[in-house]
Parts: sequence; structure tokens; C-alpha cells
Amino acid sequence: MNIGAIEAGGTKFVCAVADESGKITAKTTFPTEDPETTFQNVQRFFGDHQIHALGIGSFGPVDLDKSSNTYGSILNTPKTKWKNYDVLGRLKKDLQIPIFIDTDVNAAALAEYQYGAGRDVSSCMYITVGTGIGAGFVQNGKTYIGKSHPEMGHILVRQHASDQFAGNCPYHGNCLEGLASGPAIEKRYGKKGIELADAQHVWELEAFYLAQAIMNYFLILSPERVILGGGVMKQGQLYPLVRKKFLELVNDYVAVDDMETFIVAPELDDEQGIRGAMELVRSADNV
Amino acid sequence: MNIGAIEAGGTKFVCAVADESGKITAKTTFPTEDPETTFQNVQRFFGDHQIHALGIGSFGPVDLDKSSNTYGSILNTPKTKWKNYDVLGRLKKDLQIPIFIDTDVNAAALAEYQYGAGRDVSSCMYITVGTGIGAGFVQNGKTYIGKSHPEMGHILVRQHASDQFAGNCPYHGNCLEGLASGPAIEKRYGKKGIELADAQHVWELEAFYLAQAIMNYFLILSPERVILGGGVMKQGQLYPLVRKKFLELVNDYVAVDDMETFIVAPELDDEQGIRGAMELVRSADNV
Repeated sequence: MNIGAIEAGGTKFVCAVADESGKITAKTTFPTEDPETTFQNVQRFFGDHQIHALGIGSFGPVDLDKSSNTYGSILNTPKTKWKNYDVLGRLKKDLQIPIFIDTDVNAAALAEYQYGAGRDVSSCMYITVGTGIGAGFVQNGKTYIGKSHPEMGHILVRQHASDQFAGNCPYHGNCLEGLASGPAIEKRYGKKGIELADAQHVWELEAFYLAQAIMNYFLILSPERVILGGGVMKQGQLYPLVRKKFLELVNDYVAVDDMETFIVAPELDDEQGIRGAMELVRSADNV
Repeated sequence: MNIGAIEAGGTKFVCAVADESGKITAKTTFPTEDPETTFQNVQRFFGDHQIHALGIGSFGPVDLDKSSNTYGSILNTPKTKWKNYDVLGRLKKDLQIPIFIDTDVNAAALAEYQYGAGRDVSSCMYITVGTGIGAGFVQNGKTYIGKSHPEMGHILVRQHASDQFAGNCPYHGNCLEGLASGPAIEKRYGKKGIELADAQHVWELEAFYLAQAIMNYFLILSPERVILGGGVMKQGQLYPLVRKKFLELVNDYVAVDDMETFIVAPELDDEQGIRGAMELVRSADNV
């Protein structure tokens, strides 16, 4: 039995097919255009491969409230052609197979939980720090969804006294994403993060924001492990800085056994999104 | 079949017995002393009533990691006689019946979910703002526990520019509890909250902190309803202030249908703790 998967991102779609053993046998990537063009590309790809179920990890916000009339639709997004677009309905109509949808970050968390940096724990978060900031959470093999899906990247953090940047979140200005995403770094310093690799103060400040966010996630969700990924985290010097600031903030109020295994890097390179989308089908089978 | 319940607080223990219909047939309250004296009082009370199972909502931090050797024990607490005390083990030894333990705030959230202000939704938080600040969360009839239980009262919030109070949390200084608990209000103004009922600026500031916390809980857990209780919330003027500031902060990024039914007062007066402890037994039966 073949399983299909879509990693539906704001800039590109990745589609893949895996055989029963989980081995990926076909894969393609194309840019995210208007929904009609995009789903024609999706249908063309899967038309060549007989799949029996599909998992999709979607950009958001997407309605994941199963009791809602618009379950599986994109909600309020700056990508106007996608606003209110019924992704799940379109795929069901085109493919006529069981389809399981979740956020892109929940899918990534699920893949890391099953096969990657979270495979030896009972719960983990996957935080992506890149163009935006988002996070997914998995406990006992199930992704976490509330009334709708969390939007953890937009929590409030305290701005550092030395940081005069107004933040670039269109909704909240200086929320976490507004202060610590890749574009926020670029806008604050006029250079991309990768060009600032040796500027210690840049990463001290970045760690100051990420550690605050992880403290709040930790006190609210109590995850066993926190996996920090995304483009900004390619700056590996961030990990020890984040661990150090997190420890200072929590101040032993809640014990963490070993910081080296509590805040870690992902292990699935940039494959966690598509592998997680595939895993949505498998984990649903086990419900 | 009689069910027993304990609301184990830092200053008092409430014990109760209910019959099969859920009606409370006996109840007692005594101060929390050293564990030995306290559990002798517990045993004396339940010795007079044949109970078949017991639920306990405990002050914390308490180890709720079922894979831990110290599951059911109090952890790091300023109450030195209780530190590392095996509450669950002691009760099992004394009573020889099935016992279900959770935090006091999770128990309260469960009672409000089943019978109170959350009875018409699929998930709700119960936040208590009193001597300390804590919160419990229930989704689909189950209380939320992570690796261990959340400690949501200690999340970081932004201090208002006009507020020079250092905060009174012994661990974090100006975390949420350090800035917005009852003792924080009293220490900041030199008067108890109840004496400041007419001081509008006091409640504007309090709402500023609570709204930030609720925004973060909302973006991380996506609860369908937020129930705000505890001694400080007896100042009913806080509810509209918190709703207003929450809306300003979220800025329509995630839609909330109706603020009046999103942030609400509890409905079980001060009974949610003991009723929730009882409910822990019933909800466990349905697993």
C-alpha cells in the first residue's frame, strides 16, 4: 500500500510517495502558486502513483477544529488567493482517498518524535526559527491540537533594554516572531544572519528571546524535549547560548535533568516536514 | 459505591465523601500541618466512611510522571516537612484502595469542565489568581499533564513601564506570579486588593499582566474557554479589563468569536477543588 504526503509551505509544495516499508519512492517539489495551479500540479504527481491515503502538513493558519464547517480550510492569510481556500475538500475531491491534515510544524514534530531527535522520549516540541517562528508538539505519538492549532511563534517576550528594533510582525510588532525570526534579524542589522555568524552580540540577543519563549512553552506544556530547527538555527553557536539563558531564567524552579538532551538540534535535516506528513497517516491508523 | 476526595492545599486540607449519585454526604476541613499529623487526620475521617476509590488534587510541585520512581511525591517546596514526601504512597498504604492524583488546579479545571463554566465546551483552562497563580487545562474530559505538570503561573510577562515593583516570586522575581498574585498586589501598594477595590489603576495594571498571560496560554494551548478564578478575581471589575487588553494584544491574529464567553468567571464557587478531586476518579474510570 502506497502512502502519499504533502508538505504544503507558503513558498513551495513538496509531494512524496512511500511504499509500505516507509521508503520514499517518488518525490517532487514545485513553487506554491495560486491554489488552482498548485493543486493541478499535486494531482498530476499523484496521478502517476497509486496512493491509498494522504497526509498533509500545511502552512497556516488552517482550520483544524473538526466540528467546524470550514475544517481543513486555510484561514486568515496575507496570501489572498489562499484565504478561506478549502485545501482538504479540494484534495478529497481530486484524490478520493482518506486524507489527514495537520500543521506543518506538528508534522515536523511528529517525524522527529518517531524517527529523529525525539525518538527516545514520550513528548517533544519542534520549534522552527526561520522566515517565521512556529512550533508543534507531540505527546505519546499524537500531535497536539486545541480548539484550533496553536500559534506559538507569536507569544510575547520581553524586549532587551539594548534592542531598539520595533519588531516586524504585522500583527504584534515585537512578539517572538517579530523580534527573533530570520527577517527580523535581517531588518535589525541590515544583513542576513548568515553574514553575521561571527557577531557574538547578535546570537546573545537571539538566545535571549528564544530562551524566554522556551521557558514559557516549558512551563505551559512540560515537554520532555525541545527540538530547535529552522534556518536561523543553522547557526550552531546558538544552542549553548539558549541552554545557558534558559537555565538562568528557570532558576531551578522546575528541574531539568540534562540541558544537553533537553534543548537539541533536529536530526532529520530538512526531511522532517515531508516525513511527518506521511506519519500523519500512520499515527491516525493507530488511533 | 462511595468515592472519597481530598483537596490538598498548602494551608488546608478538605476531605469529602460522595455517594454514587455524586452527592457529597460528608466533608471536613483541617489545617495542613506536618505530613504525619495531616494524614492521621485524613485517615480518621475516611475511617468513618467506607470509600472504594479516592481522588486527590494536590498542591505542588508534585511528581506526576508515571514513569518516575517518585510518582505522587511532593517535590521541591518551601514547606520543608513536605519536601519529597510520598503523598500517594502514604495514602495507598493507609487506605488500600485505588487512588488518582493530579494537581489542585487540574482538578479545579476538571470540575468546571464537567459541571461549571466549561460544561458546554470541549476544552477549558482554569486559572487561579490568589496567594499564588496556577492554571489547569482539560481537553475532552482529560486533564493535561506533560512530562510532569505545567507550572503556568510562573511564565514571563512584560513589566509595565510605570510599575517599579521588583516582583515577589522567590525564583523569578517579576514572573507572572511575582507581579500579579494577591501578595504581589499587597506588597506593591501596602494594602490588600480588597482595600483597593476602587483604585482603577490597580486593576488596569493587574489586567495588563493577566491579559499577557492569557494571550500566551491561548497561542500555545488554544483552549476554547478560559475560566479566571481565585481570590483576586473576586474583584469582578477585572473581567472586562482583561478581555479588553487581551483583544488589543491578540489584534485579530487568531479570531475569538465572543469575548464574553471566552474569558469567564468560575461557576462552582469555591467547590471546584474538592469536586474536581472527586471527578479524577470518575474520569479515570472512563479511560
